[in-house]
Amino acid sequence: MRIILTFIKIIILSMAKRRKLMLRRPKTTKSANQIPGTMTYVGNKESSETKLDVIDYNAERYERFSSTTPEDAFRFVDEKSVTWFNIDGLSNIEEIEKLGDYYELHPLVMEDIVNTGQRPKIEEYQDYLFIVAKMLYYKNGEIENEHLSMIVGKNYVLTFQESDGDVFDPIRERIETAKGRIRTRSADYLMFALLDSIIDNYFLVIDDMSDRIEALEESLFTSRPSDDITYEIQDLKRNILRIRRAVFPLREVISRLEKMDSELIDTHTGNFIRDLYDHIIQISENIDIYREMIWGLMDMYMTTISNKMNEVMKVLTIMASIFIPLTFIAGIYGMNFEYIPELQWKYSYFVLWGVMIIVFLLMLYYFKRKKWL
Amino acid sequence: MRIILTFIKIIILSMAKRRKLMLRRPKTTKSANQIPGTMTYVGNKESSETKLDVIDYNAERYERFSSTTPEDAFRFVDEKSVTWFNIDGLSNIEEIEKLGDYYELHPLVMEDIVNTGQRPKIEEYQDYLFIVAKMLYYKNGEIENEHLSMIVGKNYVLTFQESDGDVFDPIRERIETAKGRIRTRSADYLMFALLDSIIDNYFLVIDDMSDRIEALEESLFTSRPSDDITYEIQDLKRNILRIRRAVFPLREVISRLEKMDSELIDTHTGNFIRDLYDHIIQISENIDIYREMIWGLMDMYMTTISNKMNEVMKVLTIMASIFIPLTFIAGIYGMNFEYIPELQWKYSYFVLWGVMIIVFLLMLYYFKRKKWL
Amino acid sequence: MRIILTFIKIIILSMAKRRKLMLRRPKTTKSANQIPGTMTYVGNKESSETKLDVIDYNAERYERFSSTTPEDAFRFVDEKSVTWFNIDGLSNIEEIEKLGDYYELHPLVMEDIVNTGQRPKIEEYQDYLFIVAKMLYYKNGEIENEHLSMIVGKNYVLTFQESDGDVFDPIRERIETAKGRIRTRSADYLMFALLDSIIDNYFLVIDDMSDRIEALEESLFTSRPSDDITYEIQDLKRNILRIRRAVFPLREVISRLEKMDSELIDTHTGNFIRDLYDHIIQISENIDIYREMIWGLMDMYMTTISNKMNEVMKVLTIMASIFIPLTFIAGIYGMNFEYIPELQWKYSYFVLWGVMIIVFLLMLYYFKRKKWL
Amino acid sequence: MRIILTFIKIIILSMAKRRKLMLRRPKTTKSANQIPGTMTYVGNKESSETKLDVIDYNAERYERFSSTTPEDAFRFVDEKSVTWFNIDGLSNIEEIEKLGDYYELHPLVMEDIVNTGQRPKIEEYQDYLFIVAKMLYYKNGEIENEHLSMIVGKNYVLTFQESDGDVFDPIRERIETAKGRIRTRSADYLMFALLDSIIDNYFLVIDDMSDRIEALEESLFTSRPSDDITYEIQDLKRNILRIRRAVFPLREVISRLEKMDSELIDTHTGNFIRDLYDHIIQISENIDIYREMIWGLMDMYMTTISNKMNEVMKVLTIMASIFIPLTFIAGIYGMNFEYIPELQWKYSYFVLWGVMIIVFLLMLYYFKRKKWL
Amino acid sequence: MRIILTFIKIIILSMAKRRKLMLRRPKTTKSANQIPGTMTYVGNKESSETKLDVIDYNAERYERFSSTTPEDAFRFVDEKSVTWFNIDGLSNIEEIEKLGDYYELHPLVMEDIVNTGQRPKIEEYQDYLFIVAKMLYYKNGEIENEHLSMIVGKNYVLTFQESDGDVFDPIRERIETAKGRIRTRSADYLMFALLDSIIDNYFLVIDDMSDRIEALEESLFTSRPSDDITYEIQDLKRNILRIRRAVFPLREVISRLEKMDSELIDTHTGNFIRDLYDHIIQISENIDIYREMIWGLMDMYMTTISNKMNEVMKVLTIMASIFIPLTFIAGIYGMNFEYIPELQWKYSYFVLWGVMIIVFLLMLYYFKRKKWL
Repeated sequence: MRIILTFIKIIILSMAKRRKLMLRRPKTTKSANQIPGTMTYVGNKESSETKLDVIDYNAERYERFSSTTPEDAFRFVDEKSVTWFNIDGLSNIEEIEKLGDYYELHPLVMEDIVNTGQRPKIEEYQDYLFIVAKMLYYKNGEIENEHLSMIVGKNYVLTFQESDGDVFDPIRERIETAKGRIRTRSADYLMFALLDSIIDNYFLVIDDMSDRIEALEESLFTSRPSDDITYEIQDLKRNILRIRRAVFPLREVISRLEKMDSELIDTHTGNFIRDLYDHIIQISENIDIYREMIWGLMDMYMTTISNKMNEVMKVLTIMASIFIPLTFIAGIYGMNFEYIPELQWKYSYFVLWGVMIIVFLLMLYYFKRKKWL
Repeated sequence: MRIILTFIKIIILSMAKRRKLMLRRPKTTKSANQIPGTMTYVGNKESSETKLDVIDYNAERYERFSSTTPEDAFRFVDEKSVTWFNIDGLSNIEEIEKLGDYYELHPLVMEDIVNTGQRPKIEEYQDYLFIVAKMLYYKNGEIENEHLSMIVGKNYVLTFQESDGDVFDPIRERIETAKGRIRTRSADYLMFALLDSIIDNYFLVIDDMSDRIEALEESLFTSRPSDDITYEIQDLKRNILRIRRAVFPLREVISRLEKMDSELIDTHTGNFIRDLYDHIIQISENIDIYREMIWGLMDMYMTTISNKMNEVMKVLTIMASIFIPLTFIAGIYGMNFEYIPELQWKYSYFVLWGVMIIVFLLMLYYFKRKKWL
Repeated sequence: MRIILTFIKIIILSMAKRRKLMLRRPKTTKSANQIPGTMTYVGNKESSETKLDVIDYNAERYERFSSTTPEDAFRFVDEKSVTWFNIDGLSNIEEIEKLGDYYELHPLVMEDIVNTGQRPKIEEYQDYLFIVAKMLYYKNGEIENEHLSMIVGKNYVLTFQESDGDVFDPIRERIETAKGRIRTRSADYLMFALLDSIIDNYFLVIDDMSDRIEALEESLFTSRPSDDITYEIQDLKRNILRIRRAVFPLREVISRLEKMDSELIDTHTGNFIRDLYDHIIQISENIDIYREMIWGLMDMYMTTISNKMNEVMKVLTIMASIFIPLTFIAGIYGMNFEYIPELQWKYSYFVLWGVMIIVFLLMLYYFKRKKWL
Repeated sequence: MRIILTFIKIIILSMAKRRKLMLRRPKTTKSANQIPGTMTYVGNKESSETKLDVIDYNAERYERFSSTTPEDAFRFVDEKSVTWFNIDGLSNIEEIEKLGDYYELHPLVMEDIVNTGQRPKIEEYQDYLFIVAKMLYYKNGEIENEHLSMIVGKNYVLTFQESDGDVFDPIRERIETAKGRIRTRSADYLMFALLDSIIDNYFLVIDDMSDRIEALEESLFTSRPSDDITYEIQDLKRNILRIRRAVFPLREVISRLEKMDSELIDTHTGNFIRDLYDHIIQISENIDIYREMIWGLMDMYMTTISNKMNEVMKVLTIMASIFIPLTFIAGIYGMNFEYIPELQWKYSYFVLWGVMIIVFLLMLYYFKRKKWL
Repeated sequence: MRIILTFIKIIILSMAKRRKLMLRRPKTTKSANQIPGTMTYVGNKESSETKLDVIDYNAERYERFSSTTPEDAFRFVDEKSVTWFNIDGLSNIEEIEKLGDYYELHPLVMEDIVNTGQRPKIEEYQDYLFIVAKMLYYKNGEIENEHLSMIVGKNYVLTFQESDGDVFDPIRERIETAKGRIRTRSADYLMFALLDSIIDNYFLVIDDMSDRIEALEESLFTSRPSDDITYEIQDLKRNILRIRRAVFPLREVISRLEKMDSELIDTHTGNFIRDLYDHIIQISENIDIYREMIWGLMDMYMTTISNKMNEVMKVLTIMASIFIPLTFIAGIYGMNFEYIPELQWKYSYFVLWGVMIIVFLLMLYYFKRKKWL
């Protein structure tokens, strides 16, 4: 009796390790019913304050400066050097407005800078280009999707980010150490370098997607079926769709940038932008391939489950088909009829064993032929 | 015996809580075989009467006025202020015809105003623009899909709705309190504000879709499989298709509005319309993503059902595979043959228990290796 | 014994009500290897003779006349009134040729008039427009797909149909009772009215599709799974594809009609054709939505079958898991070993019952925890 | 014992009729790494020699002539009559080269004539049009896919086929008996007639596809599930894809032919080509519909298998659920405990039968309620 | 007892042959965060050194020369002969840079030459065309995907490959033996010949894909279901997507080459490029067809698994349905009630056998009618 209880206990305990799902609540995509042109930050990055980081450089000189108020930085603005204002944190709207007023930005541009739901786009204004893009990078093992706005003027670039941490450190280093062309070129080359850096990080993110797909494929075959795998596949789907949403509109942006006939963009930079376009097309193709792979995973998973169920059913069918007839035979001679001739014969017990072994072997042969064993 | 009966009762009772489906009857999409240009209201909003709400404003003055007959409102029409006539209720065709005659609207425009099956579109006439859109908003927890027609003239806007309740209250408030630009601009800006308000509500509706998808995903994993989930997925599909049908043609409308070279639209308003276009593109993208997620849910659900069935089969197979052979062994020694040598041996009962425990443990080990436990 | 036989009889009888499938044989789509420009009727409408129905009208007068030979009708042809010749029945090729010769129709036009496999199209000739469309309407509960050719000239319209019965009765009534604009306009408005009538009937047909989809959805959940449902879904697919084939090319026809710069079409009629285009776009959208719903039904059905199978397996597993171990225990004490100590104890029978009830309850508890009950 | 053996024999024998699959080896699509412009026949039609069939005609005269060498036929070439050279068999490259040299064909044209992997296309050269098409027709119950090249010059047409047997006999007959327009027209009308004949045969082939789909649908419901059906569905897929590959590029060819402004094509023939275009569009639409139907078949098949498995499981569950508890009850009273009070009561055997019948009926009622019976 | 143990051993052993999966780790697609225009080799071909192979030819003369440094080869550069520099191995960046400097290649071109992640493209520069393509060929039974860059100048062609071994040997032979046109034409014809050779190898690769698809289809039906098949299908998917990624952008390249109005391309070569375009379209079509076939395989596989499970379930159901009731009957007469009238009757044992045989035959008949046997 105890054995059965133990057995039941094992089964019950094996149920205890339960799946824990962490379904994240997606944020609202836009603050509804506000007055158009009103700045409202709708993101969820907790940045207590707005930080301003200024890099001013040309071939000869380099200066870097940090501040929390834009006014401190205006003295850098002159014709002879490129000035890169980087703003971290979008929740402090007043400071951003000061900068916007100084550069005479359009109210709708100001609104899009803080509207983190805005999709990537490019707009050409009189004195500047306005570019929205999404930075994708890894932070604590999660894909971080950060809203980035860029204003490219004659000799300045403004970048607005949601929070600390970005993908631009290699560029800062290159400017500081005067590596590559960057110090000798103007603001449009800086814009190119920033976009190039964003797109390079897309490569890292989709390479990681590819690793996850592969790991999942492996575990489809090796681990026992569980809802965790279903959930992981669904999560991959969600991620690839999210990445797609960041990348595909940017492709359009780069394409328009390539064709744009603006005074702000030097012809030399044009070649580099064409290169950028090549890269983003390559990413788009990879995304579409990974997407197909992910969609195929669900089918694969279904097939492996079915295979496993097939195995289970075969074991049941073999066990039942062999022992149920044998039990029936045993049951026959367990009957209490007064007159059953076989019961009196001396060797009938052994004959019966023989018969049962033959039935057993025939069954084995039958299942062997059916390739179930 | 009672126990078995009780057990059967439990099962029978557990069947009692039946699924209740509320499949809504879709309304006829158009009243067939009527004379073209005839006004027939085909919607299902029960509005006993037509209500007219007039707001007349310019930078200096503001007046609001309610009525049930259009004639009362014509005195507001003049060149110096913007007049917004809002009509609630389309079943009273005569009153609407009076207004239409006053503004010399085309008979086909009049037909489309009351034809709630009409899809979103824009048409340019000599003196006015005619826009059809669909308002989506929540009313008593259901998505309300309300037909809206808009006539935009030189200094007036007419809006025709099926019933009380709309998404324009924030605009009415802004006009009254003179917040934002609205009081200083002309009728085209009001048109923009109305469309913006409609699109803002699309964001709310699709955010809610996203919540429902997420909740359903959660319940796929946690609740026992039932037809309710299938039904809910199908309902989501239906809803997303319905929303899509409201949004996608409006995207075209906004696109044409952006490119339109009409005297009625001020160049300043052009920037705002471009912004509108951005938003509706963003909604379209989200709809397509949610659509893919919903379509994926059915596959997910199938997989979780298969997983659950796999579990069920394993339990059956383990129980049957262990106890059927053991029962067979017991059956052997229940036979009444006169000569079964083992029956006479004193310890054979205990030996048999030993054998059976070994078989049991071997089986456990086998299933453990197969990772079924 | 009788009970088992009865039981078997019930099962065998329940198999007697077999599914009856009526798979219709699709007709050949074109008569192959005939000489191009040869008239051959390939449809399957059994119309013994060709009937001619003539309606001649202008704002002042109205005359209607029936005949079986076209010659009787030529006297109606004059410049001052619109003459609508309607021909029912395409199998009598000689009579149709007479009419064709009278109006000098191109041989390929003549071929298309009787070729019921011809898809909807529009062709502009010197003196007339040639339009092919498909009428869809209900006749004895089946969707009737009838080939319609239309010749629109200066002051006449010829319509060729496969058989009696069409969707034009409301128009005939409007002409007779002089309702609407129709009596005051020329032949192009009649063409518009006829096309409008055809498209109105598409609305009725797709509304009915929607009802069938809905009814099927309902029965997926409530009735027991059967191949009838599979068949019904497949039949819906076939139907929606057939409707699609009638509607989509007509959309192109209307679009070309809208853009056509022909003397035969009055500018006033242009507005009405734009309205027609609106309607056919709306139908196309609905068709695509219903198509997606129908495709989704098969998945839904699979899920409900899987759910039902899951239920079946649970009942089996619960019954087997509870009673197989109990039967094993009973089997143990049915063995005939000479020395089984428990057999002699007085209360062991009652103790055993206790043990079995405990096992039973533990099992119930286990299945309750697994949420199978 | 014998009965069980017989039973096992029946099952084993029923496995003997095995599925025989005939998976055809697709031929190599192009001979790789040859020098461009080299003629190499890569098809698999075994034609020992090249046969030349010449038909020379105009309105007055008609002559037909067969040969194996092209030189014999050159005397027919003159300005006043249309000469149709038909070449059967592409493996004898030398003879074809002579013809090519005589008409000064481009080396790449010569290569494409014998390259059976070449897809349908049209090319315009100085003095002739070069058209590649695929003939589809039935030969010994199999779809024959034959490569056809056509050279259309001022007063001659050359057709190159892989083997004997084609779809042009009705045209030969029409020329001989002077039926239809063909004798009075020039070479371009002959080209039209040949293409028309090819397309007419597409109609026959896809009508046959439709029959196979229908027959398969029928057998899905009536026959027992087997891998043959899966194989047949896959074969249909393959076939429809193959037909599609022949038809869709030809559609493009006809479309270009329609728009072509060539001296070789008479304006009268233009109308007929437009008619051809109509037909090939119609075939394309049908192909796409049949394709969707075939893809749907796999889902249908899955559903019918699932339905059947559901039936099987229900029978098992009903049988097991009814008899396993009853066997348990019988097992209880088969125990050999010394003191089981019920055993001594006189009517307990009959009471037990009563209890078992009640359990049996309760079970039946339960399954009836669940709609499993 | 031993028999059962043996039986268990067989099952356990049959589990020992485990599936071995070789999931390859995809390489990083681009080296992120490098300075644009920097040359970094990211491929994984282990080539210790860069080898230079020069072929210099015109109609009269031919010379071939191997070296490891580019300088040795510059003496071949003159106006009167075509010089083909082939570089194997991209890891030695300095040597490549020397060549690049000599021909004044743009830095971004230099970067793309060594960036093996670059997708196929064509770029037109002042003095040369830059073409990137992917060679697909078999090496040790695996598809080798090798990055190839081509610079086509006035009288020279530079080709850069990742490693030894390519698809150009037939061209080298043709040049050496002066077969075909190649010796009499200029550099653009060499470019054509190289591209033609690459595309010819695509045919070989997709023919092989077709073989694998076919073999897999065969094994779906004949072998027992296993995860290996699922894995093989997924591997085919991956491969076809990889081939697609190589072929589809090259199609664009050829299309642009066809339309290009460059001095570097002779009009005679234009015809050959059009032929090339034909071939790559043909490959693209085949890829899309094979893709559909592969996607269909998963469905096919699911169906065959379901069929097999259906078979398994039928065997179980038949065995259980026949023997469970019979065992119940035997169990009845194994009860130890003191008064069971049948037990005393002399022939009741034989009567019971009769009853059981009748039940057995009825069951057989029932399953026969259900077509399960």
